[in-house]
Parts: sequence; C-alpha cells; structure tokens
Amino acid sequence: MPDTFRELRVELGDRSYPILIGKGLLGSFDLTPYVSGRTVMIVTNTTVAPLYLEQARNSFPGCQVDEVILPDGEAFKNWETLNLIFDALLKNRHSRKTTLVALGGGVVGDMAGFAAACYQRGVDFIQIPTTLLSQVDSSVGGKTGINHPLGKNMVGAFHQPRSVLIDTDTLQTLPQREISAGLAEVIKYGLIREPDFLAWLEGAMASLTSLDSEALTEAIYRSCVCKADVVAQDEREEGLRAILNLGHTFGHAIETHAGYGNWLHGEAVGAGMVMAADLSKRLGFITDEDLRRVKSVIVSAGLPTGVPDDMTSDHFMNLMAVDKKNVNGQLRLILLRSLGDAEVTDRFSPDALADTLSAFCH
Amino acid sequence: MPDTFRELRVELGDRSYPILIGKGLLGSFDLTPYVSGRTVMIVTNTTVAPLYLEQARNSFPGCQVDEVILPDGEAFKNWETLNLIFDALLKNRHSRKTTLVALGGGVVGDMAGFAAACYQRGVDFIQIPTTLLSQVDSSVGGKTGINHPLGKNMVGAFHQPRSVLIDTDTLQTLPQREISAGLAEVIKYGLIREPDFLAWLEGAMASLTSLDSEALTEAIYRSCVCKADVVAQDEREEGLRAILNLGHTFGHAIETHAGYGNWLHGEAVGAGMVMAADLSKRLGFITDEDLRRVKSVIVSAGLPTGVPDDMTSDHFMNLMAVDKKNVNGQLRLILLRSLGDAEVTDRFSPDALADTLSAFCH
Repeated sequence: MPDTFRELRVELGDRSYPILIGKGLLGSFDLTPYVSGRTVMIVTNTTVAPLYLEQARNSFPGCQVDEVILPDGEAFKNWETLNLIFDALLKNRHSRKTTLVALGGGVVGDMAGFAAACYQRGVDFIQIPTTLLSQVDSSVGGKTGINHPLGKNMVGAFHQPRSVLIDTDTLQTLPQREISAGLAEVIKYGLIREPDFLAWLEGAMASLTSLDSEALTEAIYRSCVCKADVVAQDEREEGLRAILNLGHTFGHAIETHAGYGNWLHGEAVGAGMVMAADLSKRLGFITDEDLRRVKSVIVSAGLPTGVPDDMTSDHFMNLMAVDKKNVNGQLRLILLRSLGDAEVTDRFSPDALADTLSAFCH
Repeated sequence: MPDTFRELRVELGDRSYPILIGKGLLGSFDLTPYVSGRTVMIVTNTTVAPLYLEQARNSFPGCQVDEVILPDGEAFKNWETLNLIFDALLKNRHSRKTTLVALGGGVVGDMAGFAAACYQRGVDFIQIPTTLLSQVDSSVGGKTGINHPLGKNMVGAFHQPRSVLIDTDTLQTLPQREISAGLAEVIKYGLIREPDFLAWLEGAMASLTSLDSEALTEAIYRSCVCKADVVAQDEREEGLRAILNLGHTFGHAIETHAGYGNWLHGEAVGAGMVMAADLSKRLGFITDEDLRRVKSVIVSAGLPTGVPDDMTSDHFMNLMAVDKKNVNGQLRLILLRSLGDAEVTDRFSPDALADTLSAFCH
C-alpha cells in the first residue's frame, strides 16, 4: 500500500463513496474492500489494456478477475459496444453480486457504469480513470450512459461507484491533446464556483501542461472536491448540478456536428466556455477584461476558442434544441454572473445569443 | 370520471404511487395529475393500438400526446425495439420532463419502463396494463428491462411508475390462453403468502376463466395488494421479494429453451410452480395432498403442468445456472414450506432436485 495519497468523500447518504488520489496507486492499492462478492469484471479498451490491465488486476487480490476489452473511442460509445460487456458477463456467468471496474477514460467509465446500472438491474462498480478528463469529471458523480445518433449521452442512468481510484502516473502516457482536453474541465470549476482556484490555475498552467506531478495532484484534488460538493447537493441534476455544464451546450453541438471523436469533448467544452463567456459579456454580466481572462486561460491550456469552419448559427440552434437541460422546449444555458459564479437560466435575449453565434460562425 | 374504482397504494417513500382498478377507466379517468410536464409518449404495440390507443389518448387532456407502436411479442423485447422508443422521443424532441405511458402487456411495460429509466438518465412513466398477467404482476413493482440472447431480463432497471391504471374491460379482448397465463401469477400469490386467497381461487376459477368481471376485479385487487406489500418491504429484491419468483427459475429455463414467445411466460411459470411444489414435497415440506392441490388449481386455470418434450435435466441445470437469484455460483430456488408460505433458499439436496428434473423430463 503506498504511503501517501489524498482522499475525499462524495457525500450521498448510503451511496457515499471515497475518491483516492495519488502517485503509483494502481496495482498497489487493495480495492477488495469495495468488492462485495468474489468476482470482478474489468472493462477497459485496446489502448489502455496493454499499459495498465495487469497492474489493475493486482488491485483485486483473491478475486476472480475477468476482463472485456472494448474498441477505443467515442465513436464506439453505443449499444453494440455496451453489449460486449453484457456478453462477457453472461458468458462468464457473473451474478448480481459481481463488481464491474472501469479502467480507462470517460467513454470506458460511462459505458462500464451504464452496464453496471443495467446488468441484472444493477450491480456494483469501481472507477479507475486513466485520463485527466475522467479523473476530474466523468468518474465523479455517477452519470453513466451511451450516445444516440441524435444526441450525446441521451441513454443512460445515474449510478454511483463504490469507490474511485486515481493514479496520477497514468497521465504520463496520455497524449498532450488529451491533457489539454482534461484541463478544460479543470478550468470550468474555477469559472463556475472557485475564483481563487481560477487565479491559481492562471499561474500553474505551465506546470500542468508539462505534467508536473505535484501540480496535477493539486488540480485533480481541487476539481474533485468542487464536483463532489455540487453532486452532494444535487445528485440528479434538478438544479445546481446543471452549472457543471458550463460550455457543454455549445460544446455538445460542436461534437455532434463534427462527428463524435473528431473534436475531443474537452476541446469542444473549451470553445463552448468561451462562447458562454461571450454571451455573458453581451448580457452585461461580465466585463471585457473577464472575457479576455477566460480566453487567455483556455488558450494557455492548449485548447481551441473557435468553432468548426463549416458550422453555422442554424447548426447550433438545431443541435442545442435537443439538449437535456431544456424544459418544455425552452433553451437553457449556463452563464457566468461573474468569474467564479455561474447560473443555469432560460432568461436571456435571443438576439444576444444570435450575436454570439454570428460572432463565432463563418 | 367513472363512479367506482378500487385504489391501493404501493408504499415506497417518495416513490410511492397509486394503482387504480376498475371497469371502464381507460379514456374516462384523467391521468394528467400524474404528468409533470406537458408531453406524453404512449408506447404500445401493433395489437393493442387499434383496440385502445384512442381511448388512452383521452386520458391525457391538454397534453401533447405522441405515440410509438412496437411490433408485438416477447421476441421483440430487445435493444432494437427499445431503440424505436428512443428514436421517437428524440425525433419529437421530448425533454427530460416528458412522461412515457406503457399501454399493453408485460413486454410493452418492461420496455417502456426501461426506456423511461434510461432516457436522458430517467423520466416519469405511467403503466396502463391491458393483459391479466401485466395487471397482476409486471406493472406493479418497478422491474423493467429487456432480454439478452443468453438470458431473460438480464438488462434492465428498477424504475417505479407514477401511477398504474387497470381497466378490467381490456381483458374482454384478451385470448383465453393469455387469461390462463395471467392466472398463473394470481395463483402464485395464494401459494406464497395467502392461503385464504388460494382457497378462494379454487372456488372462483370457473368464474375467472369465463371472464366474470366482478371475480376478475377481486382477483386483480388481491394480487396487487399482495405484490405491493412484498415490494414495499423489499423494493430491490435483497430478500423477501425473491419469493415472487416461485416457479420462475424453472419457468425461465423453459422459456429460454423453447425460444422466447413459444411458451407464454405464465404458462412456463405454471409448469415451474408444479416443479417447485414437486421438489418441496420431495424435501418433506409439503404433503402429497398439497402437491395435488397445486396441480389441480393450475390445471383448472388451463395451464400446463409438464415441460417441453425435448427438454432434459442438463438443459435445466445449464439454463438455471445464470439465474439472477444465484449468489456466487450457488443455485437458489423458491420453495414452499407449506401452502401459503414460500422461502428463497440454496439449502436443498442436489439429489432431490435431480429427482424432480428426472420426473418432469423425458
């Protein structure tokens, strides 16, 4: 067992669980206290398996550990791939006492989590996120699901893991582009609730992009604390939790338009946050200087601030119309009241939104 | 609004809901108090739609009521058919405030309920069961799901409806074979918990099979009360609720072997209950006379008491090995301690089980 790691708890009553963050945890940290039966099914993908599968198996001493290796990529976040998990569980005769383990990024986590939510009407699962994006975002909070050709994450469930294990060493093998994508969600926490964290990020961005281990641990820990706090207050996104979607309404439209996987989720969210900030400025909520800071920190993380060349305002309006946050057909967006304070609202001028879209689209 | 109907409540804290039972409720009973948004998607099938879809629409005055009509039959209880519901919801831009309405038998109810559990990670739904089986069983208790080629109901969720509307008039158009299949579950309640109800059924069976409205209402009401009581004590089947599966472990094996839809679920459960009673007698729990009563009431309901001609003991053992009730590979069965008292157990002699299987298989 490693000497030092940081631990925080997501407080959700009888569904509470710990998040364990540290260097070198994978394989040395014993996860069997979070396994209620004797069987484990590790769900991973073709990219992560050669790097970390054997280490992950070592975290479950004494268990029967089976595995299912999915094709890698958002393009495979669909029912066909999900069914590979059910096939493996049934062929290996896993009962409802089994534990699924998600080893990989957000796609693996979302699919393994949804499979756990549905297999025999619900079994346990554990998250071992190996990308920055999944470590700071998707592995915390219990959102699981798959995509539908007409929209991202349209089919899924809320299903909380029993524990989350984050080994910062796994980031050393991550492509730079995915580090940047993960930083988009890190920046988001600063923008929606943590002005001090935002200021810290502006200073620490060079250390983060160069994969300084101490800076990464701090950024991950503060991100998880922020997300865990929001989720604890609003598990099923009936109010507050929606602010975690800053930039996501615009971002989902970009991802869907570009085709899943062509833009990384974090890249689309980065651009989407600039759009949300732009609209917030047009509505008089934030200043020109605030908008400049938003753009600057997003650029320094290596993220795009514009939209795909062939995307029009009509594309955005049509794609945003099916967003899950909408109520009775009314578009809702997350906007910045100030840097470090976000709200979900349907009270904005359609003209201001049209101006923002025109400013970004060609 | 009709003058008289019977109402009972399934007590599940903030997920509690009413079951409304009566003659002529469909179309005249206003269900809008159970619709939180303004949109409704009625899920039905090609057999039920021509009979009851227009009436059902009339139960939602003032709402936008869309519909999706699925192919009829257990063979279609799969992901492809489920996706037709998601397609319809997304094409019609239903938000997470929508309400799904299941209008049909158990297959429609299980699929509409599972679609409601998963669409945008969970929306409301209402059950309008139109078969006896679904009125007394599957529409109560929140079990939803689809089949997998390797096992029945292996993918699903617990998702409680907002309300259940049972119109006994819909049974007048039901084939006799499906009346019998529904009576299997009615008899089950008598066998597992209600000796008085069992005795009542032995006397009332002729009225029930000839569709006497008053007898049907009484049988449905008492069945729902029994199920609601069990579900209230153990919503997620961590203990007591498993007794509702009397005859189902054997029955699921028969259904899977025969191919979904060739045996009706209730027919397989009828035969399965005789097998469970046979094993209970071999173990000395019930008497020869008790077993004779079980067979007799099942025969009087028009149900089979034997298994498919080509089915062997090995078929049963292999198919029962993947049953959801099993724990750590140990087969668990529901057995009768006496008539009107069931228990779930893995403590039975394998020889006695082998003897029961030999006695039923050719």
